Amino acid sequence: MTNLSPLQIERLKYQPKLPSSLANGINHLVSQEGSATEAVANKEEIKALFKNTYGKPTVTFQTSTESVASKERNVGVILSGGQAPGGHNVIAGLYDALKQANPNNNLYGFLGGPSGIIDGKYVEFNDEFINDYRNTGGFDIIGSGRTKLETEDQFQKALGVCKKLNISAVVIIGGDDSNTNAALLAEWFVANGADIQVIGCPKTIDGDLKNEQIEISFGFDTATKTYAELIGNIERDANSAKKYWHFVKIMGRSASHVALEAALQTQPNITLISEEVEQKKMSLASIIDYMVDIIVKRADMGKNFGIAVIPEGLIEFIPEMKSMIANLNDIMAELESDPAFVNAPTIREKFDIVENRLSEENAKVYNSLPAIIKGQLLADRDPHGNVQVSKIETEKLLIEMISQKLEEMKLEGSYIGKFSAQAHFFGYEGRCAFPSNFDADYCYSLGFNAFALINFGLTGYLSSVRNLTEPANDWIAGGVPLTMMMNMEKRHGEMKPVIKKALVELDGPVFKKLEENREDWALNDRYLFPGAIQYFGPSSVCDITTVTLQLESQEKLDKSRLARV
Amino acid sequence: MTNLSPLQIERLKYQPKLPSSLANGINHLVSQEGSATEAVANKEEIKALFKNTYGKPTVTFQTSTESVASKERNVGVILSGGQAPGGHNVIAGLYDALKQANPNNNLYGFLGGPSGIIDGKYVEFNDEFINDYRNTGGFDIIGSGRTKLETEDQFQKALGVCKKLNISAVVIIGGDDSNTNAALLAEWFVANGADIQVIGCPKTIDGDLKNEQIEISFGFDTATKTYAELIGNIERDANSAKKYWHFVKIMGRSASHVALEAALQTQPNITLISEEVEQKKMSLASIIDYMVDIIVKRADMGKNFGIAVIPEGLIEFIPEMKSMIANLNDIMAELESDPAFVNAPTIREKFDIVENRLSEENAKVYNSLPAIIKGQLLADRDPHGNVQVSKIETEKLLIEMISQKLEEMKLEGSYIGKFSAQAHFFGYEGRCAFPSNFDADYCYSLGFNAFALINFGLTGYLSSVRNLTEPANDWIAGGVPLTMMMNMEKRHGEMKPVIKKALVELDGPVFKKLEENREDWALNDRYLFPGAIQYFGPSSVCDITTVTLQLESQEKLDKSRLARV
Repeated sequence: MTNLSPLQIERLKYQPKLPSSLANGINHLVSQEGSATEAVANKEEIKALFKNTYGKPTVTFQTSTESVASKERNVGVILSGGQAPGGHNVIAGLYDALKQANPNNNLYGFLGGPSGIIDGKYVEFNDEFINDYRNTGGFDIIGSGRTKLETEDQFQKALGVCKKLNISAVVIIGGDDSNTNAALLAEWFVANGADIQVIGCPKTIDGDLKNEQIEISFGFDTATKTYAELIGNIERDANSAKKYWHFVKIMGRSASHVALEAALQTQPNITLISEEVEQKKMSLASIIDYMVDIIVKRADMGKNFGIAVIPEGLIEFIPEMKSMIANLNDIMAELESDPAFVNAPTIREKFDIVENRLSEENAKVYNSLPAIIKGQLLADRDPHGNVQVSKIETEKLLIEMISQKLEEMKLEGSYIGKFSAQAHFFGYEGRCAFPSNFDADYCYSLGFNAFALINFGLTGYLSSVRNLTEPANDWIAGGVPLTMMMNMEKRHGEMKPVIKKALVELDGPVFKKLEENREDWALNDRYLFPGAIQYFGPSSVCDITTVTLQLESQEKLDKSRLARV
Repeated sequence: MTNLSPLQIERLKYQPKLPSSLANGINHLVSQEGSATEAVANKEEIKALFKNTYGKPTVTFQTSTESVASKERNVGVILSGGQAPGGHNVIAGLYDALKQANPNNNLYGFLGGPSGIIDGKYVEFNDEFINDYRNTGGFDIIGSGRTKLETEDQFQKALGVCKKLNISAVVIIGGDDSNTNAALLAEWFVANGADIQVIGCPKTIDGDLKNEQIEISFGFDTATKTYAELIGNIERDANSAKKYWHFVKIMGRSASHVALEAALQTQPNITLISEEVEQKKMSLASIIDYMVDIIVKRADMGKNFGIAVIPEGLIEFIPEMKSMIANLNDIMAELESDPAFVNAPTIREKFDIVENRLSEENAKVYNSLPAIIKGQLLADRDPHGNVQVSKIETEKLLIEMISQKLEEMKLEGSYIGKFSAQAHFFGYEGRCAFPSNFDADYCYSLGFNAFALINFGLTGYLSSVRNLTEPANDWIAGGVPLTMMMNMEKRHGEMKPVIKKALVELDGPVFKKLEENREDWALNDRYLFPGAIQYFGPSSVCDITTVTLQLESQEKLDKSRLARV
């Protein structure tokens, strides 16, 4: 790397903070076991599938005055799935702990995601290599990929590669699916007497990998702050020019955590939450009505501008859209090999063919959509033949339908404003930002801690660092059995053991915060401008974490206080 | 303002730096006059139009040991046109100088842009009000607008409002058009014996208001850094996932300064420059060929990813598109009242009607475009009936045409890669960011200096702060007659005096820097990751300005050295 920006040069020098329990050295730890654990649901099925790794206790690390000699080990590490800020620091923390434990230890990085361990594509890390990536964003140190580790054949190949490199532990840095795979691999290695440990690390900007033991996945902090920077800037622009409504769609897959957090940091006029739409069975028409109501009220106050924040996954949560999309997925599987469809001379004719095949109810829904969205529903399909909902421009769908509705109201005389809208989609802008101080510290600690779990001979555990709203010094490091987070869910028609995804809870403190304020934010302009992430300077600016984490920690604290009374 | 983000709280405390010449106090200045000036072109016409304000000397301020008492004054200030980071600081600097000169002075802010001075809508500033906006982005302190001040009637009304408020000077913060209007208003006030001065301040993120005396307009620094932050993050994402080409369109109107600067800060694989396209008369097909060539070469190297940066104004500079759009604008003026067109049942039929009316050559161009772009060319027209080129999704046009071309090449066997693209458009994200330290200091100095120009009785001047690549202490403050920057140009069919827009010069050092490196950047990945703007911390990160300014200053220095030899 010959080309470095000034910020990168400075960030390479940053020394991430560790919990005090880990800071005394990797060979000065004792492990405290909690009681045996159980899966969050479907206990018997999970237990049967994970005979060797089920039911283990949680562990917590504490400083020991005695030094324990560490045996020599080779470890492999994998980055799995979408990028999240801080991945490089997980590897740096893991590397530093591993070398601190025994300078003869080696760390191998598998290239291009989980396929690297199957195909035997890897690099060996050394100081110089690692040092170029400390506190930087991206997963480019070894690349990432989306291959799922789940078949016997893949496991066999992984075993062969590990044996060749004399690897006795693998760290998988990934989201819920990747950590489900980590659990399967851990179980398989034990069942097959392989003596290779598997440790997971909780990664995803989406924030949907969390539970009682995992307060938040890494990357959520940096990504949401980056999106909030942009939304705040746009709010200020809207409030200055006073002529546009900005519709901002935010990445985050099915869960709305990212949109919700970005909204709490910026206080826009409208925030849609997919989980609420689903639970309240809101139709597309009722969503439009809700938004139009606010737009009209603001127009009556002379304010023909505003900001609406929309979660990426929204469309899947609208009941009639969900039904129509499922119907469409079935039809498209047939149509893709139907010459009448494939060779239809115009897109309009394709629309007609599709409409005729859909059920009456679904055809009505399909037909109500703007042409651009109809086209996207047909065009962008994933390798399984399913529509890629993330590629549907929901923000433009809403703008177009709202425009139509407002036009009608104008003719009736019930709306006298001007509606001019700008659409935005933020996702790739935040997944590889330089990790915030919080994510830099958290990730480094997660990686360092992952090696502690390895050193204590554990497998099938997720690296866990908790108490995150306190200073890093007071963070609690340990491990959580992966099976503890699992339940059975239907995937591709089959019941499978998977880590339960955390969606936004409508009775949780984070959604409630939005609910309590949204009427006020809708009509009065309570815009907050968070600005760019700061890495140096006042602690009040540089060291605060997300509203989500603060509210959820406060709730846990309140609950435990209440329990004690 | 009850709702402040942590960064905002800290930034309100920041004390912007002033040039040492101004820092000793507004009443401790002497003015040094340069020689008489002339317009950049059409000298006689400009002189005839600006009988009273033409040919004045440039001025420079220096510290005086003597204190000069300042008479009481009321001043009005206007924010004109699109937002640019730092506008609030211009007003804060102006306010502080005005109150320092004489505590009885008053500053009025006209609301909603130039229309405020016509309609008499204003606020009076006081400490508390100003303090809430120091070092913040946006123009929301008094709002902005795009009304052009140019008619006799408007000038008369403005005079009436100024008389009512006893205002003896007006500061107009705006781009080239707004400062052209400032020059007209200054001349009119003198010609009509109004004894009201007019001072301009150079604002625009586009960077196209600059010349020998004005090194850069304010806002360019912060906006380009914000866009570069996002492009850098996307580069890191592309380089990690290795599966997408990202096409990033960047705001900046006709000029490509913003795209060029953002590219120099991030070193993407492809950068298009509108001025080059125009000068080399590149057709759309040749642009596509250029991009496809790089995409195919990278694919052959196994790299099916990359970043392309595209200036907002590109489409207007492609000769055949320019001709077609001009033809289309004429046709649409007729078609908008033609029932056959207005009531055409499908968009396809509208396309056909348009195609039949276009000249043969232009029809061919129109017909070659994807349907989505054809639609945008018909749909989004400005109040003058012209297509709003900024609303044409050029980034999607390029993606679609490149996809088609690559499909053809795949069939021929000359391309074996995968092309999957993501489109982005950045503009509103950067116009209202918290001003960088550079823009915070520069804007405050421009505003402070504007009052110095007023205090010395000048009118028709642009506030000028130069030597900007040196520390603020060494900046040179003074004024430049607005007429000096003017020439005659055709506007709406009439020759008008206007400030000459600065486009990217192909023989200038900034474009040359791109030209020298772009082959290397195209195939080898030289991505630079600037990260978020930093306001605190190491000077190497917080206090550097743009590559554009650095290169242009260096060139001036080299030229003046050469001249001396």
